[in-house]
Amino acid sequence: MFRNRMPRYDILSEEAMATLDRGWRRLMSEIGVEFMDQRALDLFAAAGQRVEDHTVFLDPDFVLEQVAKAPREFDVQARNPEHSIHIGGDAMAFGAVYGPPFVREGAVRRDATMDDFRNFTRLAQSFAALDSAGGVICEPNDAPLDSRHLDMVYALQTLTDKVYMGNVVSGVNAADTIRMTEILFGSREAIEQTPATISLINCNSPLRWDDRMLEAQFEYSSANQAVVLTPFLLMGAMSPVTVPAALVQQITEALSGIALSQLIRPGSPVVFGSFLSNIDMQSGSPTFGTPESGVGLLCTGQIARHFGLPFRTGGGLTSSQVPDAQAGYEALMTMLPTFLAGANWVMHSAGWLEGGLVAGYEKFIVDVEILQMLQHEFTPLEIDEDSLAFGAHEEVGHGGHFLGAMHTMERFRTCFYRPMLSSSENYERWMRGGGQDTAARAERIWRERLETFEPPPLDDAVREELEEYVVRRRAELGD
Amino acid sequence: MFRNRMPRYDILSEEAMATLDRGWRRLMSEIGVEFMDQRALDLFAAAGQRVEDHTVFLDPDFVLEQVAKAPREFDVQARNPEHSIHIGGDAMAFGAVYGPPFVREGAVRRDATMDDFRNFTRLAQSFAALDSAGGVICEPNDAPLDSRHLDMVYALQTLTDKVYMGNVVSGVNAADTIRMTEILFGSREAIEQTPATISLINCNSPLRWDDRMLEAQFEYSSANQAVVLTPFLLMGAMSPVTVPAALVQQITEALSGIALSQLIRPGSPVVFGSFLSNIDMQSGSPTFGTPESGVGLLCTGQIARHFGLPFRTGGGLTSSQVPDAQAGYEALMTMLPTFLAGANWVMHSAGWLEGGLVAGYEKFIVDVEILQMLQHEFTPLEIDEDSLAFGAHEEVGHGGHFLGAMHTMERFRTCFYRPMLSSSENYERWMRGGGQDTAARAERIWRERLETFEPPPLDDAVREELEEYVVRRRAELGD
Repeated sequence: MFRNRMPRYDILSEEAMATLDRGWRRLMSEIGVEFMDQRALDLFAAAGQRVEDHTVFLDPDFVLEQVAKAPREFDVQARNPEHSIHIGGDAMAFGAVYGPPFVREGAVRRDATMDDFRNFTRLAQSFAALDSAGGVICEPNDAPLDSRHLDMVYALQTLTDKVYMGNVVSGVNAADTIRMTEILFGSREAIEQTPATISLINCNSPLRWDDRMLEAQFEYSSANQAVVLTPFLLMGAMSPVTVPAALVQQITEALSGIALSQLIRPGSPVVFGSFLSNIDMQSGSPTFGTPESGVGLLCTGQIARHFGLPFRTGGGLTSSQVPDAQAGYEALMTMLPTFLAGANWVMHSAGWLEGGLVAGYEKFIVDVEILQMLQHEFTPLEIDEDSLAFGAHEEVGHGGHFLGAMHTMERFRTCFYRPMLSSSENYERWMRGGGQDTAARAERIWRERLETFEPPPLDDAVREELEEYVVRRRAELGD
Repeated sequence: MFRNRMPRYDILSEEAMATLDRGWRRLMSEIGVEFMDQRALDLFAAAGQRVEDHTVFLDPDFVLEQVAKAPREFDVQARNPEHSIHIGGDAMAFGAVYGPPFVREGAVRRDATMDDFRNFTRLAQSFAALDSAGGVICEPNDAPLDSRHLDMVYALQTLTDKVYMGNVVSGVNAADTIRMTEILFGSREAIEQTPATISLINCNSPLRWDDRMLEAQFEYSSANQAVVLTPFLLMGAMSPVTVPAALVQQITEALSGIALSQLIRPGSPVVFGSFLSNIDMQSGSPTFGTPESGVGLLCTGQIARHFGLPFRTGGGLTSSQVPDAQAGYEALMTMLPTFLAGANWVMHSAGWLEGGLVAGYEKFIVDVEILQMLQHEFTPLEIDEDSLAFGAHEEVGHGGHFLGAMHTMERFRTCFYRPMLSSSENYERWMRGGGQDTAARAERIWRERLETFEPPPLDDAVREELEEYVVRRRAELGD
């Protein structure tokens, strides 16, 4: 997996951080946070926090004590140990887009299906730059609602040997995910020792954790599975329009969720989550890849480190409807700050289109190219005498050409990043090849990948047990 | 003009910088630099440097003494004082693309004409994010070769009231630029006191300054006009394939050119130039927006500050043939590091396409949008109690919506960057509007800008004198 050994780009002064600290302490203790689950309220009350109706008025120092119980870094195991990941420190793990109900292939935009889900899962498996297919890589609308989580988890377990995310639609779905993970990894103990899932727990911002998400959180944290506590903030809608206010709210929400996980099971793995952008104030539409979201992202990294927590943010976000110039620059407007901040768990790294409503096949390829480039760019230079190539200058002299120099010949295969998608063909050659733009070339790439896909090997007995589980549970769920 | 008050992203350690320092000192003194102009060789010899044929073997400490004579920061005046710029410190000035022989509008790629030159000049004038139309915004192939510089300078002087770049094709062209600038600003004294042009002096890398460029440099530096001494490095062709080697060569070339300017006229304004990318090792084609160029750019900023010099680098570079996703992400792959490094003079900020062979109308608009976003993003947050919007939380409560909150109502017009080009329309609305991608929307914008363009006012007597000069010189040059 990728380790980001470049410096972090920190933009908050100590004074600014102190102001933010005063802000979340006040918000948490005076406005409080709603938890729509009685078990959560009971845990907080038993720990001495003031609870009124569903609102918990949190003592900031109590919350920091809980936060201190969480691991600063942890592993998440994949069934192929080479694909296990580390969350925290300088490690960065990348998962595909999560949640879109629609897909786009070329000019066609349509409902996502289970076949699409499997295709995107295969694509995620086939690119080394991605550490995970994620979880709900698209919403398979042709599969029965009550049992589709079984099909999705099964696809993630069998078509990839990488880390996957757990289903969070309900406590029941979470329990199914955990049970299937126990089958895949052999036992409950095996996955309690080292988590084998990581799951997204979204806040219903502002300042409310909903019942179904909390049910899932209880299941996962009890089983020592990793959870990503994520405020869902579109400034102007779910938070105030100023970035500092959004940051204060984000801290309040994330830390309150993290504190709950530590009450459920002290030491259980958690991630400080961030999903922070803004709406367009004319139309009310969500917008992505914006300057405000970029700034918020950089601050988020610094804040998470301030609390000693691994963090999730970033991705290849865009509002664009198609994989065009806007999709390219907006995706990078988020992904480059993601690297500057050193985000540890990066969802939506490939395939995000149209504000997250669409999983785009071509956009998936665009994003993988961006990811590959940045992984290359954020690998520190080696600067020593040898790298200065004095001998090449002696060989080439003034006004000469380095293409044939010995120093070049020795390095030409690996000296530069080799693009998968980007074209630098001259105009005549490009026209002879059909004058294909980036989206057209991306289509060729994902189709080739799917045609040549080979699923990773899986023990027959395990596969059978998983299948039996899916069949039995589907029947029990009435689908 | 834009001031970048965000932190710089420095990636070179002190040890790395010391290694680079050893590198350029050795390269400069042992391999030396060629100057294809006898006056340059005489100046270096008279100053005690060893000269053999056209090669000057430079004493690094002597070079640093010359560099110390150059101003750390300086102004370049525009005829509209509001558009005058500062070069150095936290100031960043942006000019349009420079040099393309072709243009692209929509699906059409063709030879550039003088009409295109005027159109791009108008576009540069019409966007506040740009400080200059640059110089050779495209090469007007329908204008006579010997006198087209007169038409270009005249267009830059009359269709914009912003800073412009001087012609560098020859000493004669440079002298014409200076004479026309004297007319526009009233006298030689007026422009010697504060430079009114900034000109690009390219090195014929590796390690050679050609005669025509040097002629132009002599003209401009003698007249106290700003020059940008720019190594032209495509790693693998004009420099070795390792970034550290390219950086060492870049320092050697830039400092040797800067030293010459200081010998011509001590204290004359200079800029440490950088144009640093790499070739594709399969095809030999130049590539842009690459990881290697991004890293080189970040290092260049740190190196220029190390020498106390303002610097030029960056732009909206791309290899893409059309304004598609690749054009979007590659442009930002260069422009975002440009802001992280705090480049002082940024050429190719708008319109660059197809490796610099094409000035693209739609790409121009894409680049201006990127520039506007980054100028917004690199404006520091104000973080104080008021920005935390505690009152908005009291008003909205848990699970509410901030759109109608008082805090939002007071700020909704200015709280977020308002896109000019990017779309966040929902799919149905976007389809009703014709389902236009970014390039199609960009076309609409540049056409509207040209239709509504009003040239900035200019004194009739000055315009007449400029016209007379152009007519007379065109006749003298035989066109």
